[in-house]
Amino acid sequence: MATLGDIGVAAAINILTAFAFFVAFAILRLQPVNDRVYFPKWYLKGLRASPLGGALVTKFVNLDYRSYVRFLNWMPAALQMPEPELVAHAGLDSVVYLRIYLTGLKIFVPIAFLAFSVMVPVNWTNSTLKKSNLVYSNLDELSISNVPLGSHRFWTHLVMAYAFTFWTCYVLNREYEIVATMRLHFLASEQRRPDQFTVLVRNVPPDPDETVSQLVEHFFLVNHPDHYLTHQVVYNANKLSKLVNEKKKVQNWLDYYQLKFSRNPSRRPLTKTGFLGLLGKRVDGIDHYTSEVDRLSKEISSERDKITNNPKSIMPSAFVSFKTRWGAAVCAQTQQTRNPTIWLTQWAPEPRDVYWDNLAIPYVSLTIRRLIVFVAFFFLTFFFMIPIALVQSLANIEGIERAAPFLKTIVEVKFIKSFIQGFLPGIALKLFLIFLPSILMIMSKFEGFTSISALERRSATRYYIFQFINVFLGSIITGTAFQQLDKFLHQSANDIPITIGVSIPMKATFFITYIMVDGWAGVAGEILRLKPLIMYHLKNTFLVKTEKDREEAMDPGTLGFNTGEPQIQLYFLLGLVYAVVSPILLPFIIVFFGLAYVVYRHQIINVYNQEYESAAAFWPDVHGRIITALVVSQLLLMGLISTKEAAQSTPLLITLPVLTIWFHLFCKGRYEPAFKKNPLQEAMRKDTLERAREPNLNLKGFLQSAYIHPVFKVADDSDSDGASEELEQEPVVVPTKRQSRRNTPVPSKYSGSISSSQAEDVLMIQP
Amino acid sequence: MATLGDIGVAAAINILTAFAFFVAFAILRLQPVNDRVYFPKWYLKGLRASPLGGALVTKFVNLDYRSYVRFLNWMPAALQMPEPELVAHAGLDSVVYLRIYLTGLKIFVPIAFLAFSVMVPVNWTNSTLKKSNLVYSNLDELSISNVPLGSHRFWTHLVMAYAFTFWTCYVLNREYEIVATMRLHFLASEQRRPDQFTVLVRNVPPDPDETVSQLVEHFFLVNHPDHYLTHQVVYNANKLSKLVNEKKKVQNWLDYYQLKFSRNPSRRPLTKTGFLGLLGKRVDGIDHYTSEVDRLSKEISSERDKITNNPKSIMPSAFVSFKTRWGAAVCAQTQQTRNPTIWLTQWAPEPRDVYWDNLAIPYVSLTIRRLIVFVAFFFLTFFFMIPIALVQSLANIEGIERAAPFLKTIVEVKFIKSFIQGFLPGIALKLFLIFLPSILMIMSKFEGFTSISALERRSATRYYIFQFINVFLGSIITGTAFQQLDKFLHQSANDIPITIGVSIPMKATFFITYIMVDGWAGVAGEILRLKPLIMYHLKNTFLVKTEKDREEAMDPGTLGFNTGEPQIQLYFLLGLVYAVVSPILLPFIIVFFGLAYVVYRHQIINVYNQEYESAAAFWPDVHGRIITALVVSQLLLMGLISTKEAAQSTPLLITLPVLTIWFHLFCKGRYEPAFKKNPLQEAMRKDTLERAREPNLNLKGFLQSAYIHPVFKVADDSDSDGASEELEQEPVVVPTKRQSRRNTPVPSKYSGSISSSQAEDVLMIQP
Repeated sequence: MATLGDIGVAAAINILTAFAFFVAFAILRLQPVNDRVYFPKWYLKGLRASPLGGALVTKFVNLDYRSYVRFLNWMPAALQMPEPELVAHAGLDSVVYLRIYLTGLKIFVPIAFLAFSVMVPVNWTNSTLKKSNLVYSNLDELSISNVPLGSHRFWTHLVMAYAFTFWTCYVLNREYEIVATMRLHFLASEQRRPDQFTVLVRNVPPDPDETVSQLVEHFFLVNHPDHYLTHQVVYNANKLSKLVNEKKKVQNWLDYYQLKFSRNPSRRPLTKTGFLGLLGKRVDGIDHYTSEVDRLSKEISSERDKITNNPKSIMPSAFVSFKTRWGAAVCAQTQQTRNPTIWLTQWAPEPRDVYWDNLAIPYVSLTIRRLIVFVAFFFLTFFFMIPIALVQSLANIEGIERAAPFLKTIVEVKFIKSFIQGFLPGIALKLFLIFLPSILMIMSKFEGFTSISALERRSATRYYIFQFINVFLGSIITGTAFQQLDKFLHQSANDIPITIGVSIPMKATFFITYIMVDGWAGVAGEILRLKPLIMYHLKNTFLVKTEKDREEAMDPGTLGFNTGEPQIQLYFLLGLVYAVVSPILLPFIIVFFGLAYVVYRHQIINVYNQEYESAAAFWPDVHGRIITALVVSQLLLMGLISTKEAAQSTPLLITLPVLTIWFHLFCKGRYEPAFKKNPLQEAMRKDTLERAREPNLNLKGFLQSAYIHPVFKVADDSDSDGASEELEQEPVVVPTKRQSRRNTPVPSKYSGSISSSQAEDVLMIQP
Repeated sequence: MATLGDIGVAAAINILTAFAFFVAFAILRLQPVNDRVYFPKWYLKGLRASPLGGALVTKFVNLDYRSYVRFLNWMPAALQMPEPELVAHAGLDSVVYLRIYLTGLKIFVPIAFLAFSVMVPVNWTNSTLKKSNLVYSNLDELSISNVPLGSHRFWTHLVMAYAFTFWTCYVLNREYEIVATMRLHFLASEQRRPDQFTVLVRNVPPDPDETVSQLVEHFFLVNHPDHYLTHQVVYNANKLSKLVNEKKKVQNWLDYYQLKFSRNPSRRPLTKTGFLGLLGKRVDGIDHYTSEVDRLSKEISSERDKITNNPKSIMPSAFVSFKTRWGAAVCAQTQQTRNPTIWLTQWAPEPRDVYWDNLAIPYVSLTIRRLIVFVAFFFLTFFFMIPIALVQSLANIEGIERAAPFLKTIVEVKFIKSFIQGFLPGIALKLFLIFLPSILMIMSKFEGFTSISALERRSATRYYIFQFINVFLGSIITGTAFQQLDKFLHQSANDIPITIGVSIPMKATFFITYIMVDGWAGVAGEILRLKPLIMYHLKNTFLVKTEKDREEAMDPGTLGFNTGEPQIQLYFLLGLVYAVVSPILLPFIIVFFGLAYVVYRHQIINVYNQEYESAAAFWPDVHGRIITALVVSQLLLMGLISTKEAAQSTPLLITLPVLTIWFHLFCKGRYEPAFKKNPLQEAMRKDTLERAREPNLNLKGFLQSAYIHPVFKVADDSDSDGASEELEQEPVVVPTKRQSRRNTPVPSKYSGSISSSQAEDVLMIQP
């Protein structure tokens, strides 16, 4: 058992690590050569250009000693930007994401204050542990374990549980209200956007006589006669976007060899045609990749023609635009035909938020996919240890020697042997955990969501469940998830909270260490951006020829909702569970929330470039998971107290989860519609205003080419212009007053990339 | 343990009882004097008048011996009417209700066939029970109990479980599809009805400057400018309708005494003013009730004035009508303002389906009411035995003697003593069970539903849960629900299905008896209509003066969805649970379904008069509960088989509920929207047709007075005409081609009554 001293040492180590990260960051970020790694957001907004002037040295290294003195001054700077400005700068998603940390602080600071002033003295002034023969640490004297069985002091914990629940619910209710207002205000004050007028229609039924485009037009002309404006069909460009990506990769290699050749013109660079340029026939690098680029260009061109001319490449989906926001709001919220599996309408996501590959999945297939993913996720959560154990059993010394006898001499070296024995089994698990978010994302994609934001939200939910079972429960009752499941199935409903509840106080020190390593050091590591830093300098050295290339070499990254939010939720869970049991955990969580708030605020201002703007559509999930944590904490407390011979408190404790769930349902009804539906009054108000201000607006032109597969917008070779023009049909560029947010495009993670020259045209019409 | 012979005797008794009921019915229904009891539906439809001609004797008794010979000929007659005609005759609700019985037959006849040809031989050809020392009946030799532990024969049961599940799902899917189509067809082919154009708006926010009426008009003129037509505010007429009901009751007494006086003019009838005319001052009956009627008439008149003139009696709700069905469909399905708790819109129920008392409950109150009802229902289900046990402990001989010593001599008589000891405790429970549906209905009313159909659906759900826990589980594991709950809380999730599963085969004979008594005899009793028969003749003797009074004395009744459907569901549950375990139960269930189908078809044709038409809105509930029964049966089978040392089959059995739940979700997505939403295409089609056919339709006049509180339509005294005219504002009667369905009004169970003279006017405009 760890004593206060042990925790102090661990804390000191982790504080030092975090401090080291901060110092490294402070030094690195001041070097002009790293400017694009630590301030990409400003470049993307066009408010900062590459540092060019001055001597060669100052171009790369900052020699001004004064700037090093105030090495932590980025912290107050990060906090200075006021919220409305931050919304304009980084979007509502980022600002509301920061509110999750703020919510954590709002919940836990008063709770910690109350717990330390009331509960810690109540626990501390007992001597149960001293009298017992148990091995215990002095930390445990602060916890509920120190209260004797059947003591009346448990009433304190009961009252505190009520107080904490009410406070948490109060904060949650307020936050939900604020976020809902922010969202509505954001949506209302926004400039005209194509998705305000557009509805995504899926599962257009096949018709032998009409093309999809004609069918859509006729259907909406008949059923929304006063409101229908125009529509855009969706092309199946999955193959094309694969080709474009491939070409981009080949082009990168070509650039690399050309740069190599230009630096050392005496030798033609050579490469091999096989795997990663390591195996196969040796050829001239430049020639090989030039011919590859040519081949792919031709293929892209012919694929593009095929898509444009073949009616089969039109998917049974369309983006239908309306004359008014009112018309779009009506169409998105209503059912169109008596068969609820065809002509499905939903709000169109932002153009950049659309996940194009999933637009054409029929209804039956969707439900089957959901079943498959459900089963797959169940097995992933409960049986993921089986393949890892298999790999681990193979990846030992004997296995390696058997598979590759020639490695025997190397493997038998003592240092390498101990390294393999020590690390290899762990690496298999670590690799799995690193790839887990990607696996979950693939599941969500397979499930058929149509926007990137929805994909991320669903992945976050799954990641949270995985963490809850494998990290939280797994650490408390030690054993794989499957063993837990087996245990739970053989235990009564009464005993499950007891089993877990009883182990909780003993795990406090473990979780304190976890918070420090995963939370503190993790957050401090986030600001250092080691991976983007290395990648940028590698690309800068080997690939960058022009300023445009340098812009593309930047990887600002995003908030990563699908991994970040579940991590925060784990801290909410730990905080709420331990608030009554071992309040000593709370300060560590508060430090995490505070630190993370400052760091992520800095990152949002200076680094991240969100891929989409969902106007905080994720808040209902965040709220729901905090409520889950609250209910779990109440059940576990009930289990724990029932072993303490304080059974008379059980009815009072049962009331708590009932009230909490009721509160959740209340909030759901009260606030959730603001995140799912679009009120007609708001739509009508904006429409009326717009009609008054711009009576001659050419809306059709504005919407005409808003929803075109990004791959058609790639302008990296000449033939695309022709093709995209064909597809866009009279692309009228409507100038608006608003400045384009991004004057430098970033490669989209998911579906091809937009390069600057044409992207600017396109983005001009998506303000 | 009951043997085959015992069951045979019980069956014979019950068949004889049922047969006796049928004979009694056959004789009673042929008497002209009972004509209004057994064929009220035809009177209500105006297709039958009172038998007047002929001699006095034949007016009351049927002397034609030939009609007695074919005393069962009502059965084929009931089956003859084709379904479309039945829909026109009795409404879609009744026809779809009959389909529940048909679904039962469709599911269980093939299952029984398969079970008897495959499973019964497999079970029968073992000798486990013979070898064991257990007491068993020869019925048990047909059940799964007869298969030895660890036998490979369990594969048969497993395969059968799959076959039964797939068959049930197949039937359910088909039925869902058919019912959905019927509903859509019914809604589409219907004549113009006010609810097609009308939306119920609740929670109109208070406004200091405008009245509710003005506010509603302005809001919809702004937000639905092209579609808004008119609206009707809702008056708080709860007190008025109470007064009207009271007056009606007093009027009945007045009629009774006047009739008494006219038959015996020598003596003025006397009455007492106190409780039920038994206590208090003795007064002249006619004078007393005449003055009472006058007093109430004045009170009603002044209350009516108060409602009309006091703006506070206008509730913050309104029925808003639109120019087109399309406009109404849009408004009902969309959110109006950014605050989702005000301006709530939903489809208006049929005017006769509206539950007026609940129209003005604010959102917060609704959520609190839901919590209260949840808790109350939980206690009702699990703790209802406590007050009954209390009553039982009081209602014994000693208790009575202590409370009323003067009864001692009577009570001590041996016969009376044994009667009290034997029946009184049972009566408390029986009374509770009789009042249970009313208690559940009160709960649903308190919860705030706005239509009678929704109230009945919710009550049915609660009644089903109550029956599931207290009848099904209560009979299997014997013990009160609370004892069960306690037991389950202390058992592991694995053990619960085992505990129940193991007891199931042993309870087969009990449930067979239950089916015969509750099902067979109950259904046969339903057709006899003993209570309406007695009530009608009592009223006819004491109250009826005019033909109109006689019409009011008829009580056709309704299907009683809130009690009838949960009863059927219990049989589905028993059938599915026992299909694999003891197939001997199936024939009894099939007989029930067949008998009930014929009887209820007869009753629907000849007797029941539905209070509302919800167009089969209850089918999703029916479907969901059959799915629940299926999943329960699968879990219990899993529990049972796991005790039979056939554990290798568990993974296969776990797959079943997963697949079943997935099937349910699939059906929900595929068919449920047809029951919740109104497709725009259908609305548009009907609008277009109507515009073409009747271009000069005065829709405003048609809708103007459709949604007026029924109490304002009562025309039983002169002053009402004035008041209702004031309220109705230019009531334009629009003649339609369709005949009014009811030319004789029936008292509405819930909110006042409509008497014929004005009702006909009103109903003319509600075709």
